[in-house]
Amino acid sequence: MKKILLTKILTACIILKSLVATGQVQDLKMNAIQLSCKVSPDGQFSYKINYKDKSVLLNSSIGFELSKPKVILDRFDVLKIDSSSYDQIWAPIWGEEDSIRNHYKELVYHLRDKGTSKIEIDIIFRVFEDGIGLRYAFPKQTGLDYFIVQNELTSFHLGKDHTAFWIPGDFDTNEYLYNTTKLSQVDALKAAAKEKDIAVTALVNDHTIQSPLMLKTGDGLYINIHEAALLNYPAMHLGLNKNTFELNTVLVPDAVGNKAYLHTGDVTPWRTILVSDKATDMIASKTILNLNEPSKLSQTDWIKPQKFMGVWWEMHINKADWKLSTGKHGARTENVKRYIDFASQHKFDGVLVEGWNEGWEDWFGNWKEDVFDFVTPYKDYNVKDLSAYAKSKGIKLIMHHETSGAVTNYERWMDSAYRFMIAHDMNTVKTGYVGKIIPRGEHHDGQWMVNHYTRVAKKTSEYKIMVAAHEPVHPTGLHRTFPNWLANEAARGAEFNNAPTLGIPPEHNTILPFTRLMGGPMDYTPGLFHFNLNQFDTSRNQKVLSTLTKQLALYLIMYSPLQMAADLPENYEAHMDAFQFIKNVPVNWSTTKVIEAEPGEFVTIARKKKDRQDWYLGAITDEKSRQLVLNLNFLEKGATYVAKIYRDGPSAAFDKNQTDYIIEEKTVNANTVLNIPIARGGGVAIEFLYKSK
Amino acid sequence: MKKILLTKILTACIILKSLVATGQVQDLKMNAIQLSCKVSPDGQFSYKINYKDKSVLLNSSIGFELSKPKVILDRFDVLKIDSSSYDQIWAPIWGEEDSIRNHYKELVYHLRDKGTSKIEIDIIFRVFEDGIGLRYAFPKQTGLDYFIVQNELTSFHLGKDHTAFWIPGDFDTNEYLYNTTKLSQVDALKAAAKEKDIAVTALVNDHTIQSPLMLKTGDGLYINIHEAALLNYPAMHLGLNKNTFELNTVLVPDAVGNKAYLHTGDVTPWRTILVSDKATDMIASKTILNLNEPSKLSQTDWIKPQKFMGVWWEMHINKADWKLSTGKHGARTENVKRYIDFASQHKFDGVLVEGWNEGWEDWFGNWKEDVFDFVTPYKDYNVKDLSAYAKSKGIKLIMHHETSGAVTNYERWMDSAYRFMIAHDMNTVKTGYVGKIIPRGEHHDGQWMVNHYTRVAKKTSEYKIMVAAHEPVHPTGLHRTFPNWLANEAARGAEFNNAPTLGIPPEHNTILPFTRLMGGPMDYTPGLFHFNLNQFDTSRNQKVLSTLTKQLALYLIMYSPLQMAADLPENYEAHMDAFQFIKNVPVNWSTTKVIEAEPGEFVTIARKKKDRQDWYLGAITDEKSRQLVLNLNFLEKGATYVAKIYRDGPSAAFDKNQTDYIIEEKTVNANTVLNIPIARGGGVAIEFLYKSK
Repeated sequence: MKKILLTKILTACIILKSLVATGQVQDLKMNAIQLSCKVSPDGQFSYKINYKDKSVLLNSSIGFELSKPKVILDRFDVLKIDSSSYDQIWAPIWGEEDSIRNHYKELVYHLRDKGTSKIEIDIIFRVFEDGIGLRYAFPKQTGLDYFIVQNELTSFHLGKDHTAFWIPGDFDTNEYLYNTTKLSQVDALKAAAKEKDIAVTALVNDHTIQSPLMLKTGDGLYINIHEAALLNYPAMHLGLNKNTFELNTVLVPDAVGNKAYLHTGDVTPWRTILVSDKATDMIASKTILNLNEPSKLSQTDWIKPQKFMGVWWEMHINKADWKLSTGKHGARTENVKRYIDFASQHKFDGVLVEGWNEGWEDWFGNWKEDVFDFVTPYKDYNVKDLSAYAKSKGIKLIMHHETSGAVTNYERWMDSAYRFMIAHDMNTVKTGYVGKIIPRGEHHDGQWMVNHYTRVAKKTSEYKIMVAAHEPVHPTGLHRTFPNWLANEAARGAEFNNAPTLGIPPEHNTILPFTRLMGGPMDYTPGLFHFNLNQFDTSRNQKVLSTLTKQLALYLIMYSPLQMAADLPENYEAHMDAFQFIKNVPVNWSTTKVIEAEPGEFVTIARKKKDRQDWYLGAITDEKSRQLVLNLNFLEKGATYVAKIYRDGPSAAFDKNQTDYIIEEKTVNANTVLNIPIARGGGVAIEFLYKSK
Repeated sequence: MKKILLTKILTACIILKSLVATGQVQDLKMNAIQLSCKVSPDGQFSYKINYKDKSVLLNSSIGFELSKPKVILDRFDVLKIDSSSYDQIWAPIWGEEDSIRNHYKELVYHLRDKGTSKIEIDIIFRVFEDGIGLRYAFPKQTGLDYFIVQNELTSFHLGKDHTAFWIPGDFDTNEYLYNTTKLSQVDALKAAAKEKDIAVTALVNDHTIQSPLMLKTGDGLYINIHEAALLNYPAMHLGLNKNTFELNTVLVPDAVGNKAYLHTGDVTPWRTILVSDKATDMIASKTILNLNEPSKLSQTDWIKPQKFMGVWWEMHINKADWKLSTGKHGARTENVKRYIDFASQHKFDGVLVEGWNEGWEDWFGNWKEDVFDFVTPYKDYNVKDLSAYAKSKGIKLIMHHETSGAVTNYERWMDSAYRFMIAHDMNTVKTGYVGKIIPRGEHHDGQWMVNHYTRVAKKTSEYKIMVAAHEPVHPTGLHRTFPNWLANEAARGAEFNNAPTLGIPPEHNTILPFTRLMGGPMDYTPGLFHFNLNQFDTSRNQKVLSTLTKQLALYLIMYSPLQMAADLPENYEAHMDAFQFIKNVPVNWSTTKVIEAEPGEFVTIARKKKDRQDWYLGAITDEKSRQLVLNLNFLEKGATYVAKIYRDGPSAAFDKNQTDYIIEEKTVNANTVLNIPIARGGGVAIEFLYKSK
């Protein structure tokens, strides 16, 4: 990760008294964002946030309840206040932008428990142009060394009944459909009760929901609450008080009910509050990424964004199976070769193979520890032959490590498993955590598992292996720190098109960019071209609730450096003209423009191909049709482009005639305004091929 | 492990009806032992045991409470009863005997839940000449696959207020001092409250105690209750009903309160009830060992009983420290060389080094996960130099892997750690589990940890490494199955001589052979020659509560194929005449005779050196002095031996003049009767060197 230092100004305007007077308000402004901090005479610290003249957060609390030592830290003496500012531009090694500005003002309160513990704790605020980050630091100090967090007392006092885009709080899954309701109408348990297709759940209560939480206020603000740099700490969920519209931090417990085991010198993740009067600013924000540490990898040339196909969807739609014993095993050598051939012919980078290893006959649902060994292929999967064959075709096999939640087992095997990958010329692994976690009592989103995901990211990097985790904790921008950690699932992705109960209604994709994707790339696996999922199993009623061109648009909307063409070769062969877009669409970008967006309604994003002049654009809508009026002013002034437009045909909709699409070419420039109809639940995808200046 | 088959008779007298009639009593006798099984008309199964005409167990129950599926299995239909008998002699690759007879009659009840579950369960009884084993098997069956054990309903209905030799039930430690009381006087919490020096405890309640439990009845029987072949199951503790004197099985829970995750096809450990009217039969019993499976190792020539010294006790007595930062690091290269020199000069096999690796500065007490990496020596420990130096001196360095209870971390490092050992010419590892277990919520004695200890035994065997575990679950004879698993601590061993509160009173060593050692060899680490433990720290009041010759006798009493000479070279140099016994005493035997024994009072054991005619004998007493009248009829008839007797001097006692000892030689034969005084808390050790026939 190249680091381009522009300016770094440490103003360090320290307020010098042995104890800072209480009652005094400390303000910090960055453009429209204003943070105000206050300590009441009895030592209660509060912060509030305004955006221009509008309230984002009313006075909100901070603090901790520790279980060891047993103490509540919610009344403080202020020892010192430090402030500084920072402005830097840095270049991610892959991503949505060539360079990212990290510009903030920082305020650090050095606090000391007013009670008998005298524990010292710092609260650090960073104010950006589009929001605020706050974290705690526990300085080295006499009398405190290791300690255990029982509760974090950070609150987010919204104070009004905003519209919220939310999923139920759950310590083990984030694969719910989003709900759009007023905060007062949140009922997490009722919402979860509609869901029948999630393997493992651990719901919290009726009023706890997950972050990233997207909110829209009555007075036109968009607010996003999440966290950044979730390391060595449990995930934050949000407990809603429906009387006060205050959100409290709900940390995921471990097996014995503790939340986090910390040490002085440790810091917590950042709590992030993003705010703007433009919805597009939410999606475009780089604040969460900026709050993560830069990569410590000295060499990164082995890390490559990639497009892949996989022996995967055919198992979901019952053409094949993960299990050998069913007699229709997907990961057969000759079947994998068919994928390699197709992927190679169409210039993909990789082919994922699931169900390649022994253990699938009895892998799920019994909290069983020793399921897979990650190095023993099924007898009909000739890994040596296939790795040679893939290599001869310019394809990398992508490894699949399904842990079934038995993480202790995976950790015992990790080194051997990665050595096996290297020996067979693989350098990308898809991990999976479908099942109740072992260590038993731990949750997918607790501190132990957070540390596991990080451990995988670190260990794979030692082997120069890239990783995409399925069923992990919500991402928090850690791909900056671990650039080999390309993507995560961590939300309801394309595989739920196959779920019997609810599928993926069109609205879901218009909310994901405002929620799940705030934390980083999603391995959503778009590109389904066959919509009735009874293709190989006539008993199935599931449908992909999308038009074909929306599937194309998702390659722009669901940003990831690791993009799958999820469908079967034969399904692509039925629409090779449309497949051309998937072949062409890049997975790495120099610039991104969020053209328009409204959570739950529509999203339009344009991206400029890395090191090229070509642009790509995707637009999607919810279950309503939409007339897209597209001002191409993002294109280079004075240049001419051929726009190849993949759009819904007149009869198309997400629930019928999904493959009615039109591909047309137009010559355009930065002054062009395109008018494109989008079908109900449809989308449009456009390539802008640079012709001349 | 060579297997010499003598006879194997399968009588298979099957009672053939579709359902066996209830109310019928099934008896099985082997010499003095009589097992009677009965199913009441309502399906309740009970078993009872008599010894000659005396009751050992009144009607006692069997069964299970499962938590998944939720069902209580305590009323049964009998589908079938199988019986058979077995008689075999087998040869352990090391041990107390050249060959062991495994002779039993077996009775298998094939039962089916009388309730709606219709779950089938087998109960298997084996009746030996000195006791009974019973276990459950869950046959493959329709309608049951994986299941979770909530409680095992096996009881041991003693029915009378016997004298018991017991330690408090505790899920995390077995390092308590033994208590000798009537069952009615058991108070586990009160007993535990006296203990101040145990690092991690998880007491159960006032009436739960541990197995092995030694009992003595008013009518002259000795009864021992324990378990054999503890694999993939939690340890059994014993809940005492002080009204009925019935003991119930208390299984160690996991982090979420479940006890065992099982699968049809699995079996439970054996519950063992040993009984005799001679106390010596308890110690001599091979029934627990016989109930374990033979080793599956194809090659065992790398497994060697051994005697070792160690950089260890000097840390306990504050001459040195495990930590580098204290400025008196024990594991310094030159200090280790001093041990190697001494050990080599006196023909030891190995030198253990504790505190050799980074992590000790901050290793204990904080439930910290990433403590040690097991491959990074302290900078003053030159492992390369030392492994070469040791090799040149004919010494093997013994590795120390203290996990601090962070077992997930150890499991991640195991392969690397064992490769590190092999690279540095080490093939024995002492593991340690001092601390609260991670996975958090698991206990030292739960199913997960039981599986861990087994995993270590298996994985070390793959690397041809021998292992001795400290702070593990109580042993259950698994050294038959894993012959590289030489020994365990799993009780209060010699290091507790240094504990400030209670130390090791003389009685303790007379109880251990009846309790802890029933399950297998103990790495007790005897051989302390300096009794006031203020040698290097004048603030210390601790004393080794033993005479010097008792320390010698312990090499016979505390059987192990891995014996330490625990004291410092300089302390041995002060008594080189007595040290000669430690140099000479073997660690592998062809025959063992328990001459006399009474739990809590005295133990005398003679053993014949492997492949030699020489015998060795040790005798110890409790806090009372004793006149040992020793009939040497175990010696070869007609042969002459020189007996070198290491005995307490006239002023010696465990609490004063501990080093007053006498070494004398006598010519003896099988007709000789020796009269030897043993001091209060003292002992005697004798070599019988074969001279001629």
